[in-house]
Formats: sequence, C-alpha cells, structure tokens
Amino acid sequence: MTDTLDATAVYTDRHGTVHSLPDAEAEAAVRADDRAHVFHSWSAQALIDPIPVAAGQGSTFWDYQGNEFLDFSSQLVYLNLGHQHPDLVKAIQTQAGRLATIQPSMASDVRGELARRIAEVAPGDLDKVFFTNGGADANENAIRMARAFTGKRKVLAAYRSYHGNTTTAITATGDPRRWTNEPGDGSVQHFFGPYAYRSPFHSSSPVEEAQRALEHLEQTIVLEGASTIAAIILETVVGTNGVLVPPPGYLQGVRDLCDKYGILYIADEVMVGFGRIGEWFAVNRFGVTPDLITFAKGVNSGYVPLGGVVISQKIAAHFDTVAFQGGLTYSGHPLACAAGVATFEVFERDGILERVRDLGERVVAPRMKELADKHPSVGDVRGVGLFWAIELVRNRETKEQLVPFNASGAAAAPMNAVIAECKSRGVYPFTHFNRLQFAPPLIVTEEELHRGLDAYDRALDVADTYVH
Amino acid sequence: MTDTLDATAVYTDRHGTVHSLPDAEAEAAVRADDRAHVFHSWSAQALIDPIPVAAGQGSTFWDYQGNEFLDFSSQLVYLNLGHQHPDLVKAIQTQAGRLATIQPSMASDVRGELARRIAEVAPGDLDKVFFTNGGADANENAIRMARAFTGKRKVLAAYRSYHGNTTTAITATGDPRRWTNEPGDGSVQHFFGPYAYRSPFHSSSPVEEAQRALEHLEQTIVLEGASTIAAIILETVVGTNGVLVPPPGYLQGVRDLCDKYGILYIADEVMVGFGRIGEWFAVNRFGVTPDLITFAKGVNSGYVPLGGVVISQKIAAHFDTVAFQGGLTYSGHPLACAAGVATFEVFERDGILERVRDLGERVVAPRMKELADKHPSVGDVRGVGLFWAIELVRNRETKEQLVPFNASGAAAAPMNAVIAECKSRGVYPFTHFNRLQFAPPLIVTEEELHRGLDAYDRALDVADTYVH
Repeated sequence: MTDTLDATAVYTDRHGTVHSLPDAEAEAAVRADDRAHVFHSWSAQALIDPIPVAAGQGSTFWDYQGNEFLDFSSQLVYLNLGHQHPDLVKAIQTQAGRLATIQPSMASDVRGELARRIAEVAPGDLDKVFFTNGGADANENAIRMARAFTGKRKVLAAYRSYHGNTTTAITATGDPRRWTNEPGDGSVQHFFGPYAYRSPFHSSSPVEEAQRALEHLEQTIVLEGASTIAAIILETVVGTNGVLVPPPGYLQGVRDLCDKYGILYIADEVMVGFGRIGEWFAVNRFGVTPDLITFAKGVNSGYVPLGGVVISQKIAAHFDTVAFQGGLTYSGHPLACAAGVATFEVFERDGILERVRDLGERVVAPRMKELADKHPSVGDVRGVGLFWAIELVRNRETKEQLVPFNASGAAAAPMNAVIAECKSRGVYPFTHFNRLQFAPPLIVTEEELHRGLDAYDRALDVADTYVH
Repeated sequence: MTDTLDATAVYTDRHGTVHSLPDAEAEAAVRADDRAHVFHSWSAQALIDPIPVAAGQGSTFWDYQGNEFLDFSSQLVYLNLGHQHPDLVKAIQTQAGRLATIQPSMASDVRGELARRIAEVAPGDLDKVFFTNGGADANENAIRMARAFTGKRKVLAAYRSYHGNTTTAITATGDPRRWTNEPGDGSVQHFFGPYAYRSPFHSSSPVEEAQRALEHLEQTIVLEGASTIAAIILETVVGTNGVLVPPPGYLQGVRDLCDKYGILYIADEVMVGFGRIGEWFAVNRFGVTPDLITFAKGVNSGYVPLGGVVISQKIAAHFDTVAFQGGLTYSGHPLACAAGVATFEVFERDGILERVRDLGERVVAPRMKELADKHPSVGDVRGVGLFWAIELVRNRETKEQLVPFNASGAAAAPMNAVIAECKSRGVYPFTHFNRLQFAPPLIVTEEELHRGLDAYDRALDVADTYVH
C-alpha cells in the first residue's frame, strides 16, 4: 500500500456521518464482521485478508488506514464510470424515492427506456432485451433461447474463456474455474480460439491465425455435427483470460460459419461491452452482428446488479407465440435500469466512447510499446481502448511463462511480487496467471494513466529479475 | 381493474417531477417501449399485456389510468415491507451517496453488518453468509458447497417445488418449469413431499402423512444410494406450488435422515424467509437446523437484487483451507446489503414478526375458515402467518381440480375468471394452477386484509359457478 497519506481523506458511514481517515476503530469493526460472517468467492477463507474499503471516488478507493489505491482493475472490470459518479448516484436516489421495484411481468418506464437505448446502439436487428441480474444468468438465458430456437442442445465455447459461475455458464467456461465444478451439464464442447502470441495453429501472422482458427472451428463443427449444435458462444475480446483481441476477419468468419451451418452466434460482452474498447458493443468495432449479445457490468458500472441478453428480431419473433421458458424475480429491476439510463446519458454527454478510443490510441498504446521495448520480462503486449494485457515471460525466445498456467502457492511467487510492487505504489492491478492486465475506469485522467503506468513500469522491474 | 379512481393518485417521473393520474400520454410511452424492446420472463411475447405501473405505496400500486391495486402477491412474494418503505428508501439513498459498490474480495461495512445480523437470527451454528444476486444462484451455490463438502454429486429434491431458473436450480425444481428446460444437469432425483390434502401416501392424518413421507424419503435414499447423495433440498414451506406447510415431525425427520445417511440438508427459504410466516427463518418455527439455508426476496424486499446462503460452521470450516469454487461479480453488493440492514432495523422496531403471527392467527385464519365453509369450490385452505393457499375444486368429494394441472388456454378459463374478478375489485392476486394464494406485504393493514379478502370472497363466487 502507498504510504502517501492523504490528509483530506474522509469516509461517510452508513448513517451519513463523515469521518476522517485513518480510522482504526472502524477498520477493526469492519474486519471483525467480515472475517466472522462473510464467506468470500473463489477463496480458502482462512488464507485471505480482504481490504476493508472506506471510500471511493472516480478511479480511486481508500482503505480505513487512509491508503489510496488507483484502481486499474475497475473492481472486477465493471466500474466503467468510476466510483460515485454523481449522475448515477442521483439516478439511483431518485428512482429509489419514486419506485424502487416492480416485478418483471409488469411494464416499467425506466426498464423500457433502457431496453430502447440498448436496442438503439446494438448492431443489426437486435432490438429486444431480456434483463437478468448479472453476466452468468445472461449467458444461461442466451443459451436457453438458442436451444429453444434451434431445437438443438450442444454449445461450442472457447478455451481461455469465462462465462460465469452458474451451471451452464461454468460448463461453457474455458478456464480452470470449470475444472472443480465438473461434471457440468454435459452440453458444451470446447475449441481453440485465435491467440497469435502462442498460436495453437502454428501461424506466423494475425491473418493466418484467423484463417487457421476458422479452419479449426469448422472442423470442430463438422466433427461434432452441425445438426447437434445450437450455438457458438464467444467473448468478443477475451477478457480475464488474456485480453485476446480477435485478428482481422475472425469474427466475420465465425458469423459466416454460423450461417453456413445453421448455428446461432452468441457474443459474450459482459466484460467488454459498454465502452471498455470504445464501443457500445465490441462487435461494432469488428462489423459483425451476432444473433444474441450478453451484457452486464458496464451497463450501469455495477452500481446495481444488472445483466441481460440483446435479441435479434428473428429469435424474438420465435417467442411471440411460443413461451420463453426462463425468468427471474429481479429481471429488469427499476433501480438497476435507472442507473443504466443514466449511463447512456453520461456516455453521450461526456463522449466516453470517443474518450476511450483517444486515450487508448494516443496515451496507452505508446506507453505499452515503451514497456515492451524496455522490459525483457514482457513477452507480448496487446489490447484496444482501455483494455490491455502485458504477458510476462522468463525468456522472450522460449516464451517460458513467468509463472506456470494456473499457478498457486510458491509457484505464483513471481506474480505475487509484481502485484505487491503495484500495490506498494498505490495502484490496484488487474492480474491473471502470468499477465499484468489493465482495465481502469473509463473516466480515468491522463495524469492517473501515467501515474499508474509508471507503477506498472516499476513492477516490471521486479518481473525482469526473473528473466534468464 | 377497479373503476374507483383515486382523485389524489400521483406518480413521480424519473426526473423527480410529480404528475397526476390518469396520464394517457405517459402510459402510451411506457407501453410502446415495453412492447417494442422488453422481452418478458416465462411468456409468449405477443400474448401478454403487461400492466404499466406508475407508482406504489405500501401494499398498493397504481397503473397510469389511476387504477389502484391492493397487492396480495407482494409482487413475486418479495415485497415484504411494501412499496416505498421510507427506511429502506433512505438506506439505499444514503448508501448510493457514500459508496454504491465495491467488489466481493474486499471487505465492506454494510456487507459485514448484514452477514452478522443474519447469523444472529439463523438457527444453530449457521453463522457465515455467502451472498448472491437472487434465489437461483443461492441454490446453485448451496448445492456446490454440499458437493465440495461431501465429495458426492446427487441431489434429492421434491416434486411440487421451485428452486430457480439457472441450470442446477431448474434441474432441482419439481414443477413444469423444469420440463421445457430438460435435459438438466442430470444430478437430481425427485421424491414426493407431504401433501395431506392429496396424500401421495394414502394417509388419513397429518401425523401419518409425515411418517409415510419420511418412510418414502428413506426408501428413496436407500435405493438411490446414500453414498451418492450430497444433499436434500427442500422449501421449508412449499411456496408457489401450494403453500404446503410441513406436518408435525416431518422436517425433524428429514434432519434425522440426513444425519443418519451423511447427507446435507439445504433449506430453501427464498420465498418463506424474512417474515413471511412470522419468523426470520421458517425453520425456526419447526425447531430444526439445516446445514445450509438459502434466502433472497424478503431479505431486503427486493429493493435491490440480493440472495445468499447461510452456512454452518462445519461446512464453513471445510473451506478455511480449501478454496470455495464459486463466485459472482455482485456478491454482497453494498447497496443491496444496506437495504438488508435497514430491513432488520424495521423488523425489530416495528415488531414485524409478531405482527405477522398475530394477523395470521387473529384475522386471516378465521376468514380463511369462513371462505372454506361458505364456498363449495374451496377444497382446502392452508397456511401460516401471511402465507396461504385456497385450493379450488369442482367437487369436494372427488377433489376434481377447478382446472387441470399446468392448464393453459381454454382449460385455464375458470381460473382466469377468478383472477379477473379479483382484479376488477382492485386486488392483484397470487395464483398458481388451481389455487388462489395469498401473500400480502407484511405491513398490510387490517382494513386492507379485510378489503382484499372480501374481493377473494366475491372471486370464489365465480369459482362456485363451476362446481358440480
């Protein structure tokens, strides 16, 4: 943690009273309740030490000791408009005061308005929205729609992917979080997506990588049987598993294969939609139109749980007279939708998409190239907009990873040293396996970008010490 | 809909401006967005006509025509403290203004406080809480914990149950919403729970029903193989599928069988927890302690999506050094938890649990008995607290149902006539199959109870016309 104590750091307690930081008594109380009664995700409970967070503002949060962290992870890559954005806060407060909730079978003004706003920016004829509570149930329901529409059950999904933690979503996931939840529902076959830096197809250029990845996908379709496959689900830009930006032609090729074989194309944009790469929907950058798009996170910066599925006209029409067999109590929650409508207003008024594209090209890309040139531990840098990965290696020739795939314990020590260096410099990084990733709030300032990337620069000095 | 137009009815738009009702222009706008862009749960989209809701207060909501509905469904049996409860609204507004969100791996004051409050009222040694977004993912994660703890996979669940719509939750469900989502994950075997009115066990008393249901459950365990069964999941009082209150000794018998065979007992209290029957957790009324309890809905009256699993010490301890393999972006969302903490404060200050028990015994039970005595269409009434079902028949001797199981279209016409009569009298009922159910907000007034039950009385006149 940084030792720069901000003398003006304050937090507001839940009764609305303002306190100055540090506040050791409050910290002890938060820690005590948390350790005694809160069961945390993806963790061995006795081996974690959750940071008690006192306050957040913009791209920064503070612990109760008054330490300040510049958040380059946007929490879990959802805090697109940063902490305590006044327009989102106001929208929630106003909606809470007028009508906090109504159930999904009724019609709500903010629910309808958000659905219309989403339809307006979605590609092609995708113009109906089924709202969920988050990304996992969005993917579950998209797959359910694809099955009902096609009458087929199997789903193809990529290795190096994450689609959520409920049973069908985790079955579709292509990373180790699936392993410990197997057997899943037995409905998914995994294939290899493009990954130019470590090509599964022995390609020598991005164009060749796309061609060979499509050839592999088509072989998979043929051998699995097109008549058995309801959908292909793909993160438009693979997120946690490496910020893998699809090479030119790949997504259009997936679209073409889906059309050729009567398969639906589901684009998972839970992490990458709503501005992360400077587009409302990431597929817009690649000029392709999926049949279904799933979203969550950035739609309202996670201020209220919300996710959903954007649905093409042909699929929606199928359910005009055939009942859709899915639903959930909080579908289209008014409080969540109000924050979503405010998100559209802020994005448009403040030119957030343009800002992300500009910062990504003008500020981040050159600095990433500098880091790659300077540090022998950097095997690859890749990204777009405000979404990047720095892949760390012990040797650029052999591409030996800084830490093994899915490393934990002592094997993960080099990455833990990199992470600790970031935190000691007041930057909370986004990391995964052997990668230092980058996903700041989209309202991050240029000064913050440079300050945070300076800290990444120092952390890469630590990574360099492992190079041989 | 009622034709009693409340001259003072108003609604507030999303900018905070107050308008009087009726407002045909606003209604048309809400309807247009909804029909063009919102995809609704469990429906054929062209065959529904969602009510545009303008406002809500306490147990009542208004459409844009100024029609007033007394809500005997608590929306989807979640609005336990009614619409726009000032304490919940204030808690949300305050939390939104101080720290709307932080991610699950960090520690939050309101998250820890809510977990502690829940632990304090949970039975036995259940004292850790894993928060989710709703009931489905609560059940998914409870089952996941049971599998990891026991090293076994199979789950036993009851027919006539609902556990949610993600894949494992819908696989566990014992009503027709599962059928159209099959095959599920292949991990659940269904058994028959007690249902004295239509006993699957040919019993002649509640005590005998409990004994025979337990004998059936034990036979199921033996024939499925105790060594294969991770958990039994049960709604403590079966909700949508009939308000089936367990007969004396049944739940304790389930607990004993679980102990005898090394199986975990998961109590699904998504609908019935947090006051619906006058207890924090419904199991408290029956004096049994499950290993895991799932909750959602009433924990914060659905003002912000929230659910969770309450975990016994022995199961929590297993995950002290073994990582739990589940998680979700919005686990323990601060805005949702703030509304949960406020719920505890209101329940305690206003004696909500005592109120529910008193109203249930003093007001509702006698009126339900009156309805049963008066109307030949009433085959059975049953319930506890503010949770009741009136089971409708064409003939009390044969118990022929007013409409067939899972009826739709023309076959459902008699129930649709009953529903229409309720709505025409300004009451929005909770119905399922051949049952008129009853689940008003827990803050319902005695006047409202009588007014609403008067409407139910008139609706039963309609049901009586089908009796032969």
